[in-house]
Amino acid sequence: MSLLVVGSVAFDSIETPGGSVDDILGGSASHSSIAASFFTAPHLVGIVGEDFPEENRRLFADHRIDLTGLQTQRGGQTFRWKGRYHQDMNTRDTLEVHLNVLGDFDPVLPEPYRACTHIFLANSGPVTQTRVLDQVRQPKLVLADTMDLWIETQRKELLALLPRIDGLLLNDSEARQLTGEDNLIRAGRAVRRLGPKFVILKKGEHGAMLLSEDGVFVVPAYPTEHVVDPTGAGDAFAGGILGYLDADDTPPPGRLRRAMAYGTVVASLIVEDFGSRRLVRSDRGEIDRRLEEYRAMMTF
Amino acid sequence: MSLLVVGSVAFDSIETPGGSVDDILGGSASHSSIAASFFTAPHLVGIVGEDFPEENRRLFADHRIDLTGLQTQRGGQTFRWKGRYHQDMNTRDTLEVHLNVLGDFDPVLPEPYRACTHIFLANSGPVTQTRVLDQVRQPKLVLADTMDLWIETQRKELLALLPRIDGLLLNDSEARQLTGEDNLIRAGRAVRRLGPKFVILKKGEHGAMLLSEDGVFVVPAYPTEHVVDPTGAGDAFAGGILGYLDADDTPPPGRLRRAMAYGTVVASLIVEDFGSRRLVRSDRGEIDRRLEEYRAMMTF
Repeated sequence: MSLLVVGSVAFDSIETPGGSVDDILGGSASHSSIAASFFTAPHLVGIVGEDFPEENRRLFADHRIDLTGLQTQRGGQTFRWKGRYHQDMNTRDTLEVHLNVLGDFDPVLPEPYRACTHIFLANSGPVTQTRVLDQVRQPKLVLADTMDLWIETQRKELLALLPRIDGLLLNDSEARQLTGEDNLIRAGRAVRRLGPKFVILKKGEHGAMLLSEDGVFVVPAYPTEHVVDPTGAGDAFAGGILGYLDADDTPPPGRLRRAMAYGTVVASLIVEDFGSRRLVRSDRGEIDRRLEEYRAMMTF
Repeated sequence: MSLLVVGSVAFDSIETPGGSVDDILGGSASHSSIAASFFTAPHLVGIVGEDFPEENRRLFADHRIDLTGLQTQRGGQTFRWKGRYHQDMNTRDTLEVHLNVLGDFDPVLPEPYRACTHIFLANSGPVTQTRVLDQVRQPKLVLADTMDLWIETQRKELLALLPRIDGLLLNDSEARQLTGEDNLIRAGRAVRRLGPKFVILKKGEHGAMLLSEDGVFVVPAYPTEHVVDPTGAGDAFAGGILGYLDADDTPPPGRLRRAMAYGTVVASLIVEDFGSRRLVRSDRGEIDRRLEEYRAMMTF
């Protein structure tokens, strides 16, 4: 088994009511591959500029993340994002976006990557996601993330991609936007009719829901008291899911449920500090302990 | 064991995107005592006018609800509420409120009611709730509901009540309003410091959270596809909890958790039709079956 993660690698500048940081390691591929690294050795595909420091590469390498697929564009600058969270920590304003080298990124998979069995197409345009999928030989499981922007601007391309993937990951509001259904269960079922075998609906601090041929599975979020920075929670959730799925070879229904529980726990860790700072201080033992606490919190 | 329910009995007129009804049986005491009736025989305290029809009394009696404490004010009109739900079914506008006989309701407990062991003070002003509590002899468990209005207008009276009750039931936004804490866990802990042994935080379609000396317990809502009318969901949730607690005599931690799971299931039933129409068509067998489905939906 082997996991491919394709997405953004970024410098994030983040302001919250409690503090701020500048130019820390961010991006969907960063967060999700670090999250996945507790379960498997991910292969990353992304692009950075010449300004991307060696210490970030070392951090990835320390988490057994294969960087063969990380392109460095000569003379280019790494993608930068700046955002500010509101008092409630659930809403934020994007203050600055500099696409830089991400602007015309055409992901090319190194030859060994094409044999990966588990594929995470982190949030990027469906055209880019499709180009990645075209290069993979015989994937066992493809999970794609998407967002409101693509549903609005590249709906046709997204609809063409959906029958080719196993699972789609999206927010509750995005599922409503994609299907026109207000009720979340009906929206999730409608997404499945568009192609994906299963749909994972993210509800932020309220947890997530899985709709598959095995029915409905619901998980509350792990109740976290110390939310420092919610950035990357969705990516860590996805990375935890994919990493676990890549490592566990048992039959699907129970496996997907355990993967979502692990994803929830990893997401609960990442929000406890800026960027992936808290996550990189964690280990599989802590994650397993929190998983058992989480299970106990739901048992009746 | 015996359960006392004090609250409003009303005529509700409800508009939703899917339909509307006029003057159906509503009110916090109605919904919560019908919900509780699947587990125990509730004793209701409330007030109605001369316009309150015999068929509603029969409906209560058919659910073994004791109406000795239901006052009928001569020449008076029953409390009326009219509301309209928005497209998403999570928000609503109150179109009309006619307090009528509820305006100067001073609840007087019939002598046998004073020996009740389990007390549900459904949503009404803390002054009224305190007057009820003063009449009860030796309650084993008192659960009170409250709302934003009382937190704003009768905060002092509410704060005086809190040390006298075992559990407080309130919305996430109300817990934030009461404590000034944005984070829900910290808000719940802060509510406990105001007196109640445990706090149940309601998150509507996102479930609920219990904070007690046994830590945190989280339950997602039962994922419901057919929401016809959300009115009374919170009251049915509370009624299910209290009814179950009154009927189960096992040690506290597991008992409170099972009660919340039953409350969630009963709440998921009430929203499937207007008012309590769906609930009164249900029975303990259906509730137990749905509880097991619910448990399966969360098991990993």
